[in-house]
Amino acid sequence: MPTLPDAEALDRADPFAEFRDRFALPEGVIYLDGNSLGALPRSVAARLEAVARHEWGERLIRSWNEADWWNAPRRIGDRIARLLGVSDGEVIATDSTSVNLFKLIMAAAGTRDGAIIAEADNFPTDTYVAEEAARLLGRPFRLVAGSGMVDALVADVAAAVITQVNYRTAARADIAALEERARRHGTRIVWDLSHSIGAVPLDLARDGASLAVGCSYKYLNGGPGAPAWLYVASALQAKLRSPIAGWWGHADAFAFDGQYRPAPDIARFLGGTQPMLSLLALEESLTLFERVDMDRLWAKSVRLFDLFAARIEALCPELTILTPRDPALRGSHIALHHPDAQRIITALIERGVIGDYRAPDIARFGLTPLTLSHADILYATGIIGDVMASGAWRDVAIEGGRVT
Amino acid sequence: MPTLPDAEALDRADPFAEFRDRFALPEGVIYLDGNSLGALPRSVAARLEAVARHEWGERLIRSWNEADWWNAPRRIGDRIARLLGVSDGEVIATDSTSVNLFKLIMAAAGTRDGAIIAEADNFPTDTYVAEEAARLLGRPFRLVAGSGMVDALVADVAAAVITQVNYRTAARADIAALEERARRHGTRIVWDLSHSIGAVPLDLARDGASLAVGCSYKYLNGGPGAPAWLYVASALQAKLRSPIAGWWGHADAFAFDGQYRPAPDIARFLGGTQPMLSLLALEESLTLFERVDMDRLWAKSVRLFDLFAARIEALCPELTILTPRDPALRGSHIALHHPDAQRIITALIERGVIGDYRAPDIARFGLTPLTLSHADILYATGIIGDVMASGAWRDVAIEGGRVT
Repeated sequence: MPTLPDAEALDRADPFAEFRDRFALPEGVIYLDGNSLGALPRSVAARLEAVARHEWGERLIRSWNEADWWNAPRRIGDRIARLLGVSDGEVIATDSTSVNLFKLIMAAAGTRDGAIIAEADNFPTDTYVAEEAARLLGRPFRLVAGSGMVDALVADVAAAVITQVNYRTAARADIAALEERARRHGTRIVWDLSHSIGAVPLDLARDGASLAVGCSYKYLNGGPGAPAWLYVASALQAKLRSPIAGWWGHADAFAFDGQYRPAPDIARFLGGTQPMLSLLALEESLTLFERVDMDRLWAKSVRLFDLFAARIEALCPELTILTPRDPALRGSHIALHHPDAQRIITALIERGVIGDYRAPDIARFGLTPLTLSHADILYATGIIGDVMASGAWRDVAIEGGRVT
Repeated sequence: MPTLPDAEALDRADPFAEFRDRFALPEGVIYLDGNSLGALPRSVAARLEAVARHEWGERLIRSWNEADWWNAPRRIGDRIARLLGVSDGEVIATDSTSVNLFKLIMAAAGTRDGAIIAEADNFPTDTYVAEEAARLLGRPFRLVAGSGMVDALVADVAAAVITQVNYRTAARADIAALEERARRHGTRIVWDLSHSIGAVPLDLARDGASLAVGCSYKYLNGGPGAPAWLYVASALQAKLRSPIAGWWGHADAFAFDGQYRPAPDIARFLGGTQPMLSLLALEESLTLFERVDMDRLWAKSVRLFDLFAARIEALCPELTILTPRDPALRGSHIALHHPDAQRIITALIERGVIGDYRAPDIARFGLTPLTLSHADILYATGIIGDVMASGAWRDVAIEGGRVT
């Protein structure tokens, strides 16, 4: 079993060690929930104050032009595009993941007949939004087990919603293989990359993906409920139509034209005025990724995972690792199964190890390579081992039942 | 013509004079654009810093429970409900005005057959969103002149989108009269109250309005692009269905149920995770309205308007007042017509009087009673008079054309 000297040796060789100081992490906590809410980058707090006090307070309405608030969704979209392996002008930061999913499912299914399908074990918003879109369009809707998705991409399917990294198990789907199958049958896939972006290296252009959405508050550290993003490959933009025809999506918004003419480009997927405080916090957090090589970052995630998994296997025989061990088949969190996962997570939070719980029996721990050291993993797994060995979790009271 | 001593006398008797210091207004500027972007309340800057550094930075994921981020849309909605004259549980703060319009138009028209109609002279997002909703539902769509709206509310209309206060002229529609007509024909009106809330006294329950949306960044001072809100009367909530079935709208979101069961109440109109930094800034700004009597606030708006109008009529014969003079027929801004309105506004901004321009020929000035003194109106109209009398505006270069 790896021990502290092993972890310290890994930390000395860690090319991302300097990033830790760029986050405002609280004392006495090992934060293993960056896959749910990323930590606060120090520069974001400073930027937010400048936006509020200077751009809003001092410059007021003039900041729409001077600070170019108006183009923030595109500007931030271009930063996100680099993490997706796509081009400038193919991504915008806007709205929530649910709203963006709705827009892209409706747009994709609007171009041809056929069913809408979604994964039965996906995060609920994806299946709910897809089913309701099917109802609105009068289309058949089918839920498919994630493992059966390749076979389900058949000719009568207009659009499929697939999440690359499963929110519970971290199992990762093969984008290239699914896109190849979809292309053969003329089906369009809307990818949900909420648990991928900023963690897993992505190359959507190479893999043939043309539609995707995702959130920005996990590995991108954009802040609680940070605006989400959506990607539409440039070749498709003029062919698809957003169901929500707000003025920001107009070809010439400030003409106040009586007739809606959708912008010829990605801007047609914008709707109304965007929440600038949250949006500009996200812009600042993305500066952290400017000099990050995603393959190297992923290599660190793999080292953190291997260390975590080896220690849990040695220390906690009652906890079963649900996440695939092959790095190519997973994302950047680790899921452990235990019938009393909620009590265990609560006991760990009381001891400063913050993970989270997903009903009914999964304990999740996010391995975020920008904020975590190998020593953090060593200490955290030590505390998990103590809690399990002592049975301390058995005495924990569960309040209410809502553990976000 | 009223002069400085008259304005100073009005300021001495102003029950809202103390509010001015609660805003961070820049030196050397008279801000007459609070109808487009409200000024920064000092306490909002402080709250935003606390949310970022403490709730997000220190407490991290725990703030979803500890700081009750989860219920922010309802909590803020209840504050807004008081300004609308409706009850707790009938309003949520969420998404953008365009997205909320889409949700309510689709929901309202989803309950019966018939056309969707909108005002030809409304803010473009309202007409665009309504027309696209009609297209999706396969319904006829008609644009109606605002003045013809009463007659257009006939039995074959499923839903009408009407703005109470026109964004250009500030002309105000009669909610009670239009609702009475709509009720007679079984039609549902979705009100856009973006230019009303926080300015005009509202009593939607008394006036029989059951559906409304609005923004929060004008008279509510919620910040640039602050999250919008939507209102659905409690009696209607269980009958209407949001087209965007995100997980926040589920009856038991954290059950991660495979089946979408819409919440029985207003929460069913929530979609995805909301931008907390922007949302909590809005919550703080609403504390300003806690002790505001809206009838008294409106009375101050009327005094500001009368002062502004009397001075413009005396000083600037070339400027035509487009806004109705009867207070019952207008909102809280004043619109002046001039073929070179854009040059005039640009010249005024250079001289510290910030209004805005709406194509092709309208100069708008917001009269926000919480931030403006009567002396401000005196000085501002003096500068407008100087610019017009000297012809200084004729030399102004218009750049680009975008004046937000």
